[in-house]
Amino acid sequence: MQHHRGSMTRRQLLARIGLTAGGAMMYQAMSSLGMAAESDWKGPAKLEGNPGGASVLILGAGLAGMTAAYEMRKAGYKVKVLEFNSRPGGRNWTLHGGDSYTELGGATQHCGFDQGLYLNPGPWRIPHHHRAVLSYCKQFGVALESFVQVNYNALLHSQKGFGGKPQRFRDIDADYKGHVAELLAKSTRQRALDQLVSKEDQEILLESLRNWGALDHDFGYVKGRESSERRGFAKYPGGGVSGAPEFSEPFTTSDILRSRLWTALAAGNNYEMQTTMFQPVGGMDQIGKAFARQLEGVIEYQAKVTRIDQDDAGVSVSYQAGGGEHVAKADWCICTIPLSVLSRIPITVGDAMNEAIGKLPYAASVKMGLQFKRRFWEEDEAIYGGISYTDLPITLISYPSTGYHSPGKGVLLGGYVWGLEAYEFTSMSPAERVRKAVEYGAQLHPQYPREFDNGIAVGWHRVPFTHGCFGQWNEELRSQYYSTLCQIDGRIALAGEHISYIPAWQEGAILSALDVAGRLHHKVMATGGRA
Amino acid sequence: MQHHRGSMTRRQLLARIGLTAGGAMMYQAMSSLGMAAESDWKGPAKLEGNPGGASVLILGAGLAGMTAAYEMRKAGYKVKVLEFNSRPGGRNWTLHGGDSYTELGGATQHCGFDQGLYLNPGPWRIPHHHRAVLSYCKQFGVALESFVQVNYNALLHSQKGFGGKPQRFRDIDADYKGHVAELLAKSTRQRALDQLVSKEDQEILLESLRNWGALDHDFGYVKGRESSERRGFAKYPGGGVSGAPEFSEPFTTSDILRSRLWTALAAGNNYEMQTTMFQPVGGMDQIGKAFARQLEGVIEYQAKVTRIDQDDAGVSVSYQAGGGEHVAKADWCICTIPLSVLSRIPITVGDAMNEAIGKLPYAASVKMGLQFKRRFWEEDEAIYGGISYTDLPITLISYPSTGYHSPGKGVLLGGYVWGLEAYEFTSMSPAERVRKAVEYGAQLHPQYPREFDNGIAVGWHRVPFTHGCFGQWNEELRSQYYSTLCQIDGRIALAGEHISYIPAWQEGAILSALDVAGRLHHKVMATGGRA
Repeated sequence: MQHHRGSMTRRQLLARIGLTAGGAMMYQAMSSLGMAAESDWKGPAKLEGNPGGASVLILGAGLAGMTAAYEMRKAGYKVKVLEFNSRPGGRNWTLHGGDSYTELGGATQHCGFDQGLYLNPGPWRIPHHHRAVLSYCKQFGVALESFVQVNYNALLHSQKGFGGKPQRFRDIDADYKGHVAELLAKSTRQRALDQLVSKEDQEILLESLRNWGALDHDFGYVKGRESSERRGFAKYPGGGVSGAPEFSEPFTTSDILRSRLWTALAAGNNYEMQTTMFQPVGGMDQIGKAFARQLEGVIEYQAKVTRIDQDDAGVSVSYQAGGGEHVAKADWCICTIPLSVLSRIPITVGDAMNEAIGKLPYAASVKMGLQFKRRFWEEDEAIYGGISYTDLPITLISYPSTGYHSPGKGVLLGGYVWGLEAYEFTSMSPAERVRKAVEYGAQLHPQYPREFDNGIAVGWHRVPFTHGCFGQWNEELRSQYYSTLCQIDGRIALAGEHISYIPAWQEGAILSALDVAGRLHHKVMATGGRA
Repeated sequence: MQHHRGSMTRRQLLARIGLTAGGAMMYQAMSSLGMAAESDWKGPAKLEGNPGGASVLILGAGLAGMTAAYEMRKAGYKVKVLEFNSRPGGRNWTLHGGDSYTELGGATQHCGFDQGLYLNPGPWRIPHHHRAVLSYCKQFGVALESFVQVNYNALLHSQKGFGGKPQRFRDIDADYKGHVAELLAKSTRQRALDQLVSKEDQEILLESLRNWGALDHDFGYVKGRESSERRGFAKYPGGGVSGAPEFSEPFTTSDILRSRLWTALAAGNNYEMQTTMFQPVGGMDQIGKAFARQLEGVIEYQAKVTRIDQDDAGVSVSYQAGGGEHVAKADWCICTIPLSVLSRIPITVGDAMNEAIGKLPYAASVKMGLQFKRRFWEEDEAIYGGISYTDLPITLISYPSTGYHSPGKGVLLGGYVWGLEAYEFTSMSPAERVRKAVEYGAQLHPQYPREFDNGIAVGWHRVPFTHGCFGQWNEELRSQYYSTLCQIDGRIALAGEHISYIPAWQEGAILSALDVAGRLHHKVMATGGRA
């Protein structure tokens, strides 16, 4: 929300990207890194033919690893999964009250949320077109509920715009569209479009602008019924004798433009954020748990891989578990360990892949979950679900899309920090991150200090099992390394969100796993399977 | 979706209004009738002071009547409610499997829906700013869930536009905005705005249009990443080797404009339809039932009021119940009977009110609930909740916002007919209405004929307890009759959605009841209470 792009520092740019994480600018930034698009799911992988007793060792019980394990086991493979954590899911992860979490550096947090309240440190919403994720949810009976992305009654906040006073999404959205419609209607009537749009279409355009932009009969976006029915009333209609409404005064074009709050308007228009979105009832970890129930006895937890070898005879993976050193052997290996971690593990692959493994940076991000003594956002402000955006380092506040009107406490996603600010937050103690989230959030909700109860903070660069949030592709990196990483190197293949064009999304992880399972199976069938 | 407004017949106009029921045009039509705005709820009515044993007879156990009954009983009044139906709620009504319903004319329908599936013939969604409704939901423990109004993956359909082929909301929305942004950017760069917008603001405007409208670096809305990230891809990004996306081709400005599908784009921008919206878990009737639980023993059901008298001694209401004639007496009366019905009941009020009672027309509308053998809209088309719009007489198809991925059957709101088409539908047999809904709906969803199971249809002009849908105010009627209807005529006062500026909404009914309860209480306290 800086006013002059030219004068922006890198830090300011990243702050702006952060502002609209899940919003327009973040989306564009992510897009230029190759993210954010739809799934090409066409149904579960069909692995036809008998693999003849071939075995597959899968490294990592995140969604990629468990998808590969599930499908290859179904196809007749002997499957074993080694997982670093003591739980399934990987970044598919939910912190509930009573959970403990120790980050790199040793700081341990005990989640103090009340029963039923939670934070999803990783993925927290599912687009309706992520068909692979949704298909497994359906297959495994994971109950879904609506995730509210856009809430017209949520806030847009900039430190400078409107003197730092938060505005309702509704007002900024209605006024931006209204002014755009009015300006285009005026241009049309002044013949500025005569070279671009036929006369007949201009008539329809004007009619459409009036309808869509809430213009009055003279194509003005002015105080009146039309605009109030979008941006809200000064006095709302009511019942009985004194129920007549009073109209509200729109902001000026200049106020809207200079506030830069329009940067957050397109969030819900982005393909990944379009209604309908979902969350699993009870937390995102319900998906990981559902996969794990299908893989009873297949996953060995608390197994830390230290070395990955292969030769003509098979794959041999060294790992630490239960205080001892172990070696697991198999004919084939699918490795879903994030490259940020894998790059520190000796692995027998060709030089090209070895190099590529070391090249992908992992995004920094930090999430804070804040429990409050009551759901003041609902009680005081009629904000139910959805997201408020700010140009403060926290970038957003997200309200729970479930349990509306619940008595007792409530948990907000109190910050989703990106870029350089994420590194700063990561360098703080967890308690300090939480304190900062409360301090910043109070600029949107003055109830914060009084109602704050406890909080928890996850900085992804300190998460022991990923050392980062997701593989941060850009076009140059992708042209250089992506196809190498997709190759089956002898008996070893990689999978995960980093081996997809939908990084950071669960859908990318699953589609990557299905792709590699299919190709590996093809190779197995072609080469006779066993070592 | 007619192309030439001038040539539109009244029927076509009404069809268009119908098209966007719950959408832009219907909203505008309703708005010009005084509808559609926010609640001025400031908390429950405070009825202070002891009414000294005064009694109130309330006619109608809809939300208005039950609100008045609840608040006045709490304030110390002796309260009795007479209700025509054998259930509470009035238009707050849900048809579940096993229910029977007999309309005026004698046709009886037996609802054949599966367990847990339902149709709300009346109100079906609650705006987040309808504070009075929501407050009672919270107070009485009515669980709420998100109602999905806008679904980017739902359909927009016109018989003429795009050759009658339904389009995704996403494509029309993205392309309309994209073309508007591109045209305004071109106008700006051609200096057409120089008299309207400062040079500095023009720079910000251009930047905002690029961001908001998904324009490319040269301010074009063209095939490419920017537009595909709004309208979707030709080939969606995926995992592994063949995951690279392909961009989609936007529709032309002319295609979008001439299709007139833009008429449905603003539906979710209208104040009453803005996210977050709610529905009670299990059906809208949960609210009426919750009120009724608070009024145990107060409501007499199946009581048909035949005459309403008053004199200096009190109010005397004749009614039929249990095959006999009865008279209920009280000091005061709040009558919530819809004017469409009340106008046929003798009532002792002044000439002005008597005239006014006969003047308000009631809107016609018809809803069809259709049960299908499976949730094909989810399985085949990834449509989860939300609304598809069409210019066919059914005007819309609404998909369930709950029970996503449920196995077994599902129920759609298969039509919401307005205006002249509603009269036509009302004149059909219920089975014929359902048959028509299936026939029309098949133009949007070819699965309809194969998957249809059973249906139910409610034509509001044949509903015995209302003879219409809601009081259809316009400005002239309101200036002539509204304040008269708000008066307390001796010992009798009226309440209901028709005595509010939020007609057709439950909020209007409740606010009307609170307004009248407050004023009646004031009068009682001023006049000594009892007769």
